[in-house]
Amino acid sequence: MKIRVGIAGYGNIGKGAELAVSQCPDMELAAIFTRRDPCTLRTMTPNVPIMPLDEAKRMKGEIDVMMLAGGSATDLPEQGPMLAALFNTVDSFDNHVMIPDYHAKMNQAATSTAAVISAGWDPGLFSLFKLLGSAFLPNGSNATFWGRGVSQGHSDALRRIEGVKNAVQYTVPLAQAITDIRGGAEPESDPKRTHRRECFIVPEEGANHSEIEQTIRQMPNYFAGYDTVINFITQEELQSNHTGMPHGGNVFRSGSTGGSNRHLMELSLQTGSNPEYTASIMTAYARAAVRMAREGCFGAKTVFDIPFSYLSPMDWDILRMGLL
Amino acid sequence: MKIRVGIAGYGNIGKGAELAVSQCPDMELAAIFTRRDPCTLRTMTPNVPIMPLDEAKRMKGEIDVMMLAGGSATDLPEQGPMLAALFNTVDSFDNHVMIPDYHAKMNQAATSTAAVISAGWDPGLFSLFKLLGSAFLPNGSNATFWGRGVSQGHSDALRRIEGVKNAVQYTVPLAQAITDIRGGAEPESDPKRTHRRECFIVPEEGANHSEIEQTIRQMPNYFAGYDTVINFITQEELQSNHTGMPHGGNVFRSGSTGGSNRHLMELSLQTGSNPEYTASIMTAYARAAVRMAREGCFGAKTVFDIPFSYLSPMDWDILRMGLL
Repeated sequence: MKIRVGIAGYGNIGKGAELAVSQCPDMELAAIFTRRDPCTLRTMTPNVPIMPLDEAKRMKGEIDVMMLAGGSATDLPEQGPMLAALFNTVDSFDNHVMIPDYHAKMNQAATSTAAVISAGWDPGLFSLFKLLGSAFLPNGSNATFWGRGVSQGHSDALRRIEGVKNAVQYTVPLAQAITDIRGGAEPESDPKRTHRRECFIVPEEGANHSEIEQTIRQMPNYFAGYDTVINFITQEELQSNHTGMPHGGNVFRSGSTGGSNRHLMELSLQTGSNPEYTASIMTAYARAAVRMAREGCFGAKTVFDIPFSYLSPMDWDILRMGLL
Repeated sequence: MKIRVGIAGYGNIGKGAELAVSQCPDMELAAIFTRRDPCTLRTMTPNVPIMPLDEAKRMKGEIDVMMLAGGSATDLPEQGPMLAALFNTVDSFDNHVMIPDYHAKMNQAATSTAAVISAGWDPGLFSLFKLLGSAFLPNGSNATFWGRGVSQGHSDALRRIEGVKNAVQYTVPLAQAITDIRGGAEPESDPKRTHRRECFIVPEEGANHSEIEQTIRQMPNYFAGYDTVINFITQEELQSNHTGMPHGGNVFRSGSTGGSNRHLMELSLQTGSNPEYTASIMTAYARAAVRMAREGCFGAKTVFDIPFSYLSPMDWDILRMGLL
């Protein structure tokens, strides 16, 4: 029997989840849940039920795993525990500092379900690599590069500035810093020295550009200390040139064994669509959530807790023969 | 209490294991086992007992995990099951086609122990990446590049040729093929089209060079069909220029979601010493073997079966806070 998947939320991640599930022969999309009026949604999958999120409870027993496609700021902290009490879940909760708190709440809710949290690429894939790196090369150092890609958090911060009508911010890693590490330089872990921030701002009519610029450059944590490039553009330019969602990054672990021999591990990612790739990772972990729950392994889980064999639809014997 | 580690075999991997264990504050080297006369071994660690491999049984209860540092061709098939019956074990068995058979034998022996097999970089790290790639991007393709590094198997094949006194073979990936994939080309999975083979041959006195060349170029599986470069050198040149053991490689997964958006994942590795890096990976999995056995999780395991949290000496709460 196929794994019956529900999707809670039909924004970019939800749509990505729909695409990803359609690529998995062992899964079928059972329902999409939304807080909007279900009649207004146009799904890609024909004939899939669209239901109000409030009524998800009615589908208990009809859905093997719920993919939580809401945002980390306000949606998941509320919806996560509510849905994990009813269904196996997977999400890509990405507010790093709040992960321990979210994990505790999900663990409390998931008494008879498996709830996989923070299963995207960062956190998620990058976290796995960082753990491996530090376990394999304990005497070493890390560096992480993000981009080139849109940072939702930084774009939001720009939009909150007075006089800004719309804005997009790209995080851009410095190519030379990456080349240097590949060539043997010690990884530099301060993101300020290895990234540039490119802002595309649509100002309100009559707004003071130099005031906006100054506000951006002084914003602590977000822009202060960074090489920041600020461009003022029209809404039309933003619409036609800056609505794509490619992203990516590189994670390095450099270390030595016995003093003399150095080793360098690198994971790199170029994704054509940040939400579609994130949803693809979530889909593999949705499969894992179902399998863990079937074995009675309940509670909140992270990517660190789940053997990779749970992610693949292939039989374990085949995995050993084909991929080892 | 520290994890008490035994090392079975004191060649390159065994020495690498000794270095790796010395970098882990949660481990201590309990004994080294050898088939040679123990008096002839000079270890780096002072005062570590060196014992005949035949007497390993006497140390049952004194060693928490045995790192199997023998070769895959003849040592491990014999020593592996014998030692897994007595101790938790970890090895880097790398004869890909024999893995299912070796797994079955180790699983049979490890009735009250955990035996982690094939935990190196290939198989091992590369296998993990390939599984993730195919699970995250089911609609995609792989490519693996090895090198630049010495292939022990190919070097051995050269040494068996009549008239060859000594030889080293480097596997060399074609840089252009890697650049092409990074730039968006479809991964090419045929290693013949993406690697060059560089041979450094020390001929016997009076040997027929062109006959040796011809034999190499026609050798099926090993050299036939490959761009093969053959250099004749002296034993002195081989000794001074070709005894280092750097290696590495790149694994790619390219795939699309929903037809239009492409994603590219890459893992790359440059290791200054193939055996030291391999032994470092084994050491992390040695920790995992001990933990699994303590939980009563016995039998043969591969890297696919083990959650990453078992690899790190850090507490699970710290991992979630620090690395997710």
